[in-house]
Amino acid sequence: MSGDTATISAEAAFDLGFRLLTAAGYSDDHARAITAIVVKAQGDECHSHGLYRIISCLDLIERGKVDPKATPVLEDRAPAIVRVDARRGISLLGFDAGLPVLEEKAKTAGIAALAINNCFHFSALWPEVEAIAERGLVAIAMTVSHAWVAPAGGSKPVFGTNPFAFGWPRGDKHPFVFDFATSAIARGDIELHRRSNTPLPAGVAIDRDGRPTTDPEAASDGAMLTFGGHKGSALSAMIELLAGPLIGDMTSAQSLAFDEGAKVTPCHGELVIALDPKSFLGAAAAAEITGGEALFDAISGQNARLPSARRYAARRRNQGRDMPVRRAVLDDLHALARRYGVTAG
Amino acid sequence: MSGDTATISAEAAFDLGFRLLTAAGYSDDHARAITAIVVKAQGDECHSHGLYRIISCLDLIERGKVDPKATPVLEDRAPAIVRVDARRGISLLGFDAGLPVLEEKAKTAGIAALAINNCFHFSALWPEVEAIAERGLVAIAMTVSHAWVAPAGGSKPVFGTNPFAFGWPRGDKHPFVFDFATSAIARGDIELHRRSNTPLPAGVAIDRDGRPTTDPEAASDGAMLTFGGHKGSALSAMIELLAGPLIGDMTSAQSLAFDEGAKVTPCHGELVIALDPKSFLGAAAAAEITGGEALFDAISGQNARLPSARRYAARRRNQGRDMPVRRAVLDDLHALARRYGVTAG
Repeated sequence: MSGDTATISAEAAFDLGFRLLTAAGYSDDHARAITAIVVKAQGDECHSHGLYRIISCLDLIERGKVDPKATPVLEDRAPAIVRVDARRGISLLGFDAGLPVLEEKAKTAGIAALAINNCFHFSALWPEVEAIAERGLVAIAMTVSHAWVAPAGGSKPVFGTNPFAFGWPRGDKHPFVFDFATSAIARGDIELHRRSNTPLPAGVAIDRDGRPTTDPEAASDGAMLTFGGHKGSALSAMIELLAGPLIGDMTSAQSLAFDEGAKVTPCHGELVIALDPKSFLGAAAAAEITGGEALFDAISGQNARLPSARRYAARRRNQGRDMPVRRAVLDDLHALARRYGVTAG
Repeated sequence: MSGDTATISAEAAFDLGFRLLTAAGYSDDHARAITAIVVKAQGDECHSHGLYRIISCLDLIERGKVDPKATPVLEDRAPAIVRVDARRGISLLGFDAGLPVLEEKAKTAGIAALAINNCFHFSALWPEVEAIAERGLVAIAMTVSHAWVAPAGGSKPVFGTNPFAFGWPRGDKHPFVFDFATSAIARGDIELHRRSNTPLPAGVAIDRDGRPTTDPEAASDGAMLTFGGHKGSALSAMIELLAGPLIGDMTSAQSLAFDEGAKVTPCHGELVIALDPKSFLGAAAAAEITGGEALFDAISGQNARLPSARRYAARRRNQGRDMPVRRAVLDDLHALARRYGVTAG
C-alpha cells in the first residue's frame, strides 16, 4: 500500500459506518442499508461510491434534507408495477422493500417495473442490477440527478448526469453488468480538476456562452456535455422522462431547485425494470440464455474488456483480506467518529 | 426541385410499391405493410428508409431468403409478454399482429414486451415507437443487425449497428421520438464513401489490425466503431442480449452467418417494450405526463433541436403535396416495374 492508501476489513468498515450513521440520527435500517452498499463498493475498489459516501450521508442529515428514520411505503399499482414511496429517506430502503415484489411480478408477468419515489440517491446502480441478475432476471435501472448537463446543440444545463445500468444473469458467474453516467464526465471530476487547477479533457464541458472549454472554473459556470453527442443527449432525455414524469417524480431541473443550494445528494425517483428469461423462452431459457456467453467470449477473446471485469477482479482480490481505502477518507471518517462520539466496536 | 430530385404523390408511390412487391411474389399483406412504411418514411424525407428500401425487399426475394407469403403466428407467453413468430417474413407484419396485444397487455399490466422472432428487418424503428406513443404509451424498441462493429478496445466485429428507439406520448402533438444506430456511422455510409473514394470521418472505423482508419476500403475489411466509446459499446452489447438470446433469436454474428454472403437485410429478432403512464400514475397521469413538456421546452427553448423535429417538419411540408424523392431511386423503381411487367395504376 502506498502512503495515500490504508486498508480496513469489511467488518470494521461496516461497524464504523453503522455506528457513525446511527449516531448521526439514521434509523438502524437506514444505517445498515447504507453501510452494506458502501462497503460492497469499497470491496470492489469503486472508490467514488465507497466509504467516502458515508460522509455525504452525514452531510445530508446535517443539512436537514433527508428523513433519516423514514419507512418506505409500498404500493401495488398494477400486475407488473410496484411503487415504493421512500418518504424522503435514502433510496436503498425503497429498493430493498420493492425488490421481492419486483421479482415476483417479473416472474409472473414476464416483465415488471419498480418505481422508487421521493428518495435521496447517492449509490451506484450496479449493486441493484447485480442483485436482480443474481435472481435470474435481466435488469435495467436509471435515475435523474441535478441539472448540470446541456442537451446536444444547447448551452444551458437541463439534464442530470443520469446514470443507466444493465444486468444480465450468467448462472454461476458474476452477472454481466454495466453502469454509466450519460454525462461525458462525472460532476465530482470537474470539482477535482478545479481544486487541482488542471485542465479538463476536451469535449466534456462548455462555458456559460456554450463555447467548448477545458477550464474547470468556466465549466462549473457553464454546463457539462453528455457522452456520445446527440445520441447520448437523446438517451439522457429518455432517462429524464422515464425516471421523472413517468413515475410522478422530479426531473433533474426540479431536483436541483428542490436542493435550494444545499449541494447534497439529489432527491428524485428511480425506475427499475426486470425481465424474466423463462417467461420469454419457457423450457428453452436455460439453453438460449447461454447465447450471451458466446457474445462475452467474442468480446473478451479479443482482449476487449467486459464492463465490470475490473470491479469483479478487485472483489476477488479483496476476498478474505483487508480492502484498500484512501487514507484521507479513513482519516475523515475517524475524525467524524470523534465528533459524533463514536468509539470503535 | 434540383435535377437530382423528383417528386411523387403518396398515392402513386404506394401504388407503384404495392404492384412491384406483389409482382415479385410478396403477399398482399406483406406488400401493403412494406409500402405503407416506406411511403411514410419518404414523406418524412427519411431517404435512407424511404422508397429506396423497396429495392432491398425485391433483392431479398430474389436471393430466396425471405418467405414473402409468411403469416405471423402470435403466442401469448405471459401476462405481460407476447411473442410473434414472423416465420421468416418481413418484421412489419409481426409488429402489426403484435401491436394490439402489446397495447392491451401494457394497459392491463402497466408494462409489457413484444418479441418478434425470425423476421427480416429493413425498416426504421421510429414508425413503431411513434405508433405506440400515439396510443398513449411510452415505447422502447431495439434490434441487432449484422456483425460489423467492434466492441470498445477490440478490433474484430461482434455487434451490429444495433438501433435503439424511444417514443413518448405528447397528447395532440407528435410524440417525442428518437431512433439511432449505436454504431458511429451507418453501414451504408461506408459504402457511399467507398464508391465516391472519399475519406470517412475520424473515429468511426478501424482497419483489420484495429488501427483507426478513415479509408473506407480498410474500414470494410476491418470494423466500424460504436458511438460514444465504451458507453456506446456497453449499450450495443445490451441490445445484442435483449434482442438476441433473451427472446431466443440470433445475435448479429449469428445473423451475419445466416446471411451466407447474400448481403441482404438481416434476419433476426426485435424487442419492443411498452409502458403505461396511467398504470404508474393513476388519476395523476394526465398532469404528471406534462412534466415532459417542461423538459422539451427547456431543450428547444435554447435552440437545441428535439430529436425527430426535422422529420416532423418534413411531414408537415409534404402534407397535401407530392413528396421529394431522389431521381435515381425513382428511375430504378420504374426500371424494376418494366422488368416485373408492372404498369402504372
